[in-house]
Amino acid sequence: MKITKGTVTTPKGFLASGVKAGIKKSGRPDLALLYSEVPAVAAAAFTTNRFQASPVKVSKAHLKAKKHQAIIVNSGNANCANGRVGDRDALKMTESIGMALSLNKKEVLVASTGIIGVYMPMEKIERAIPELVEGLSETKGTSFAKAIMTTDTVKKELAVTVKIGKVTVTIGGACKGVGMLYPLMKTEKHATMLCFLATDAAITKRMLGASLEEAIGCSFNMISVDGDMSTNDSCFIMANGLAKNREIAGKGDYYRKFTDALKVVTSELAKKLARDGEGATKFIEIFVTGAKYEKDARTIARKISTSNLLKCAICGEDPNWGRIVAAAGSSGVNFDPDKVDVYLGNLKALSNGMSVKGLDKNKAHKLFTKRDVRIKVDLKSGIHKATAWTCDFSKEYVAINSEYST
Amino acid sequence: MKITKGTVTTPKGFLASGVKAGIKKSGRPDLALLYSEVPAVAAAAFTTNRFQASPVKVSKAHLKAKKHQAIIVNSGNANCANGRVGDRDALKMTESIGMALSLNKKEVLVASTGIIGVYMPMEKIERAIPELVEGLSETKGTSFAKAIMTTDTVKKELAVTVKIGKVTVTIGGACKGVGMLYPLMKTEKHATMLCFLATDAAITKRMLGASLEEAIGCSFNMISVDGDMSTNDSCFIMANGLAKNREIAGKGDYYRKFTDALKVVTSELAKKLARDGEGATKFIEIFVTGAKYEKDARTIARKISTSNLLKCAICGEDPNWGRIVAAAGSSGVNFDPDKVDVYLGNLKALSNGMSVKGLDKNKAHKLFTKRDVRIKVDLKSGIHKATAWTCDFSKEYVAINSEYST
Repeated sequence: MKITKGTVTTPKGFLASGVKAGIKKSGRPDLALLYSEVPAVAAAAFTTNRFQASPVKVSKAHLKAKKHQAIIVNSGNANCANGRVGDRDALKMTESIGMALSLNKKEVLVASTGIIGVYMPMEKIERAIPELVEGLSETKGTSFAKAIMTTDTVKKELAVTVKIGKVTVTIGGACKGVGMLYPLMKTEKHATMLCFLATDAAITKRMLGASLEEAIGCSFNMISVDGDMSTNDSCFIMANGLAKNREIAGKGDYYRKFTDALKVVTSELAKKLARDGEGATKFIEIFVTGAKYEKDARTIARKISTSNLLKCAICGEDPNWGRIVAAAGSSGVNFDPDKVDVYLGNLKALSNGMSVKGLDKNKAHKLFTKRDVRIKVDLKSGIHKATAWTCDFSKEYVAINSEYST
Repeated sequence: MKITKGTVTTPKGFLASGVKAGIKKSGRPDLALLYSEVPAVAAAAFTTNRFQASPVKVSKAHLKAKKHQAIIVNSGNANCANGRVGDRDALKMTESIGMALSLNKKEVLVASTGIIGVYMPMEKIERAIPELVEGLSETKGTSFAKAIMTTDTVKKELAVTVKIGKVTVTIGGACKGVGMLYPLMKTEKHATMLCFLATDAAITKRMLGASLEEAIGCSFNMISVDGDMSTNDSCFIMANGLAKNREIAGKGDYYRKFTDALKVVTSELAKKLARDGEGATKFIEIFVTGAKYEKDARTIARKISTSNLLKCAICGEDPNWGRIVAAAGSSGVNFDPDKVDVYLGNLKALSNGMSVKGLDKNKAHKLFTKRDVRIKVDLKSGIHKATAWTCDFSKEYVAINSEYST
């Protein structure tokens, strides 16, 4: 397996495009299109928020089709809390793309991100669609990655190649989302993070869904910026089979290889999101080990990753590790506090539930001055583990989010 | 029922004291004592965090005794994650107070708040105890309220009088805690918020516990500053019977009257905590109504109260109500999004799940410029309701919490 500097259009047969439709006040690119030259199987995971944006509802319905070829994305308006009007607008976006590309609307998926509760400027979108479609190119993966950004400061894209038998298969992806970021997505059920994955692997729709679910569980569903779950989180994958490997139709070796490669793509993209979190000055990795169940490890790691107090401490480079303890204990998971060890980097701060005497405060502080901060919690009660990723909490986060809609 | 400007020593027979033991670097008062001149029945609720501070463990054990007369509190050190050493130190504090006041250690309760993972400076505490005990006075309720403060900017105290039959009963209270504030306490089981309540009512220990549990459910357990649950949250009440009402021994009218009065005390104190939240510039009340179950209403109100995004928006006086919708939907509660109405003050922003066309943005903005912001979510699916209280999220919160331990 190899990680490359590729994009969502690195896999064979994928074209993309990104244009300025004028939805964003900033005038930046805000409408993007991903297209497979041949019919592809698709799978997706969506936010588990009870309020689901209209594009989420439409994409869920369209995923029942056997094949898909296009995904249209706008990054200026969430199209959420707009009722039937919003549903009709989201549907219209798939219809218009379908018309322009000679596809049935059901073969087109749709995603949106931006402000909630504002009706879609459909005339702007309709006006931009011809340019969007004409611009489709295998060299425009990066235009796509840029056009889906909202408060992101850097584009996030990646490709991985992996051998399936004797055939090299490529998986490419692009994603966005650095605030309202606390995804918990389920396949065909639930972040606003948006992720678009493309692969030329030959794989059945069913196996593609299973593989995506596995990959999301240990990547996007383990990141947080602010603990706020979006109404629009969506992760899509299209597989068009152009690599011509023997089709992956069951959970054998090839499924494993493909899924492991997909996990690398989703994990690397997820880490990019956390690293670019709104106002972030630090990247934080929280590793929980020794858990009785994997679910427990994930719950604790995620709970620590959402501690405002810990994240403020790390922003201030203050090794106030007691906040790790408090967060772990409030996760709702049952464990023996008297067994727990906590490490800052490789420095042990808590041993068997007791603060380590003579902890070198200068060393601890130094670990927190780095750009990447690593925390480990060992429950010493089992073999399961999980890793969560987040960023620190800075004054800049408050500044960004106190003036968003106005 | 009457709310007065009283203190924790307004009920008959209660004395208090607060001194500077030198635990806090700031040199402010940090050791406090509450004392009932006659034996009292006591009840308490503690944090449900798996990591429980040593004073929580010791107080839980001591609550098994039938009568109590004193509570010692320090506000410079949480005495948490200190293992057996911490347990021994907490116990020693009760012993020393017991010795000075001729009480069995089991008749003394203990509470702590401050940094986690630092051993207690016991010599400082021991040195301060004589002054603390000698200082006991019925006029020092306010000294007590001041000595328990950490990052609080104002003292929080209150008293209420209520007629039980022909007898006037008084309930007084003091509390602290404006960060690491997201209590979920259970009686004799689970915040660092600390609350100390005193009453001269005659009531059985059992009914006092039941009354406290009811009062906490709709007050302290409905506030949040940062969503971080402490290892030390504790709420104590002592009832010494000196009002000489007919003892409340069952859930009749008198129990109801007493509990309603207690709810007023705990709700008013809880609101004071939210209003003084670290870095707060606004007080936010979130009212959820029309729920199928009270539990659902509480869960949704609480989830909204912990939305960093909404709290940043309110800090910036930006009426970005979509964040209310997103938070409600991520609460895990099952409801019909197409029925939901959302109000900012008395301005309807969402109607039947659809954003209200022509919403007056200036009016909405104006509502958010006030010191007190009110939000209402009507699920229109039942008769149950709940209110949660929080504050906005400002840059000042980050400043306060990025330099706490160093």
